[in-house]
Amino acid sequence: MTYIEGFRCTLCGREYGKDEGIFTCRSCGEKGILDVVFDYTAIKKIMGREYFIRNRDLSMFRYSPLISVDLSRSSEFLRVGWTPVYKANRIMAHTGIKNLYIKDDGINPTASLKDRASAVAVAGAIETKNHTIACSSTGNAASSLAGNAARMGLRTVIFVPERAPEGKLAQLLLFGARVIVVRGDYGDAFNLSKAAIDKWGWYNRNAAINPHLVEGKKTVALEIAEQLGWNVPDWVAVSVGDGCTIAGVYKGFFDLLQLGITDRIPRILGVQSDGCSPFVTAAINHELLRKAEENTIADSISVGIPRNPVKAMNAVEKSKGEWVAVSDQHILKAMNLLGKEEGIFAEPAGATGYAGVEAAVEMGIIKPGESVCTIVTGNGLKDVKNVMKAAGKPIYMEPDMKELEKYMDE
Amino acid sequence: MTYIEGFRCTLCGREYGKDEGIFTCRSCGEKGILDVVFDYTAIKKIMGREYFIRNRDLSMFRYSPLISVDLSRSSEFLRVGWTPVYKANRIMAHTGIKNLYIKDDGINPTASLKDRASAVAVAGAIETKNHTIACSSTGNAASSLAGNAARMGLRTVIFVPERAPEGKLAQLLLFGARVIVVRGDYGDAFNLSKAAIDKWGWYNRNAAINPHLVEGKKTVALEIAEQLGWNVPDWVAVSVGDGCTIAGVYKGFFDLLQLGITDRIPRILGVQSDGCSPFVTAAINHELLRKAEENTIADSISVGIPRNPVKAMNAVEKSKGEWVAVSDQHILKAMNLLGKEEGIFAEPAGATGYAGVEAAVEMGIIKPGESVCTIVTGNGLKDVKNVMKAAGKPIYMEPDMKELEKYMDE
Repeated sequence: MTYIEGFRCTLCGREYGKDEGIFTCRSCGEKGILDVVFDYTAIKKIMGREYFIRNRDLSMFRYSPLISVDLSRSSEFLRVGWTPVYKANRIMAHTGIKNLYIKDDGINPTASLKDRASAVAVAGAIETKNHTIACSSTGNAASSLAGNAARMGLRTVIFVPERAPEGKLAQLLLFGARVIVVRGDYGDAFNLSKAAIDKWGWYNRNAAINPHLVEGKKTVALEIAEQLGWNVPDWVAVSVGDGCTIAGVYKGFFDLLQLGITDRIPRILGVQSDGCSPFVTAAINHELLRKAEENTIADSISVGIPRNPVKAMNAVEKSKGEWVAVSDQHILKAMNLLGKEEGIFAEPAGATGYAGVEAAVEMGIIKPGESVCTIVTGNGLKDVKNVMKAAGKPIYMEPDMKELEKYMDE
Repeated sequence: MTYIEGFRCTLCGREYGKDEGIFTCRSCGEKGILDVVFDYTAIKKIMGREYFIRNRDLSMFRYSPLISVDLSRSSEFLRVGWTPVYKANRIMAHTGIKNLYIKDDGINPTASLKDRASAVAVAGAIETKNHTIACSSTGNAASSLAGNAARMGLRTVIFVPERAPEGKLAQLLLFGARVIVVRGDYGDAFNLSKAAIDKWGWYNRNAAINPHLVEGKKTVALEIAEQLGWNVPDWVAVSVGDGCTIAGVYKGFFDLLQLGITDRIPRILGVQSDGCSPFVTAAINHELLRKAEENTIADSISVGIPRNPVKAMNAVEKSKGEWVAVSDQHILKAMNLLGKEEGIFAEPAGATGYAGVEAAVEMGIIKPGESVCTIVTGNGLKDVKNVMKAAGKPIYMEPDMKELEKYMDE
């Protein structure tokens, strides 16, 4: 059972009933991405703080009343979510921030935050009796869909742009997905997947089209709040590509506020690489979003034409947050620091949020006394080539103690 | 506080007090690996089934009374353990086994079971006020040590053999470890690390030397038992290299039996690749362990001279288990099946346990009516090159619907 009232277009505000079975607004077309509207009054009756004390399901599925698809079979799914939140004991010295937390979402079944959306897609496909799920993706959404769908015996067709790194392709192929590498950029892969989904009627796991997926992603915010004892931090920093993850972060905190479980929404820091920063550019120049170049090592957020701009911009605006861009060099430095000081292994897009925190502190946006949680969205093992750039070099030597003594003395 | 009585040599049986601070037997030397002896009477008083109902720490640290080092600071550690156990709903059809479970230990902070031993090493170093930890490793133990130590601000020096795959090196370098690639095999790396540890007095995280590490690894067995509602399966299958992990599996079930929490020890299936199978060869020929060639894709268990043979052989013998070897081809097939049917992404050594289950069923060792749990010891992202061998191929095409229609029709 779900607790949704219906859907509302993020562009024109048109409302739809919960049983209309549509993904985007009939008036606005593909750009009219819908927001799921919940019946908070009903949810409030079952989901107070006591609910969480009793609930022993330590996965994202503990929040099922706040998720817009039927999760009655979730005990058979891959176990997604309830990833650790670490206090960044050692990094705090670098930033001057008094309370810095890191939510490591690389510790998910397929090693990225995208598992949260994919679990919801799998549930949605089962609910609508669809045996095939399709998506286009820069990689993590794809491998995550492939893994989560495989576990439940669903078929997947996945469209990826040419630049997807080897590790990500290997993962989704092993999960038995049909993988179509589209010669072109992310936009080309997205468009081809859309045409195919229209033609064959597959379940759509493009997060910017399917409104339920943001409702899966928001569980990362629900967990942050709960794991910090419902003390919402002043800031939450997250890297931004398509805009769906940041939309989910906002929605999660929004839900908790509506339920009276928390007392505010944190300010959300949207972080992009300056090699691909359409949101930051639009925010700085107070202009509409324009297509940006895709030139960053953080391939998971290298999206020149974000597909979920309204929800993303709302997340920052309504939370009184900020947009910042960081350089690829800074991202590599952040990967290195997270690894060396906290033992957290982030892919470039995963470390981008933290790099943004440093930048925001530098710019005076985040004040040293404020508390901050940054989300590591994916595991460094996904992108070894770039990890090699961030890391130091090994020493090669013969199995000889003299050689070792010489090295250790240096 | 710990609940150990002392140590007992696995070779000569000589006993040592808990405060003697030694790792190996004074009579037998390096081969005299010690076993930790617990005060089960004392543990029994605090650790019955009720203990587990009350305990909300869902990590390996929930078992701290059964771990032989001081874990009072474990809340600051990386969150290790409490990895998922999945019922293999879809694979069961392939094996004919009625109850097949998969413990996915690739879902650990550094993506392998070795995190369990490394967490204990970190605790041990802190307890003995040692700021540097060293080990030799084929990869997973190393990256796991580097990550877990980094989180607590400890220094690591790591000796790896030449053949360690790129992903594993990248990971430990990013964690800030000093990495020494020894031109030679695992034995050369092990010997150089030993000499260095002797010289500089670093904390020793070689699992076959330091008896506490097996006590960390055993938490995988404690979790399997608890997650299956204390219904111990008939068989537990695990891949074997040095022999420490299988030793831990046995010790965990042994502990639970001593405490009266469970009523038996499962039969343990030790699985090796036939490209490196010293244990299987010794068992088949009823002879002593001899050096084996190291010629398998399963690099994490490619150990020609196992360093913990007595504990490993005891695990199989005392549990009335069996040894089996499988081919590399079979391991690749198992990786593929785990991914495609269950959404579980295993590295070669991680899928070896399951391949062994298939072999044991084929040979009549495991009966179809019996329940089996196999342990996936490491994540496939660690070894993309071999995953590519196990997986299918992607399809490359232009962003063109006609081309796609042609492909889908085939």
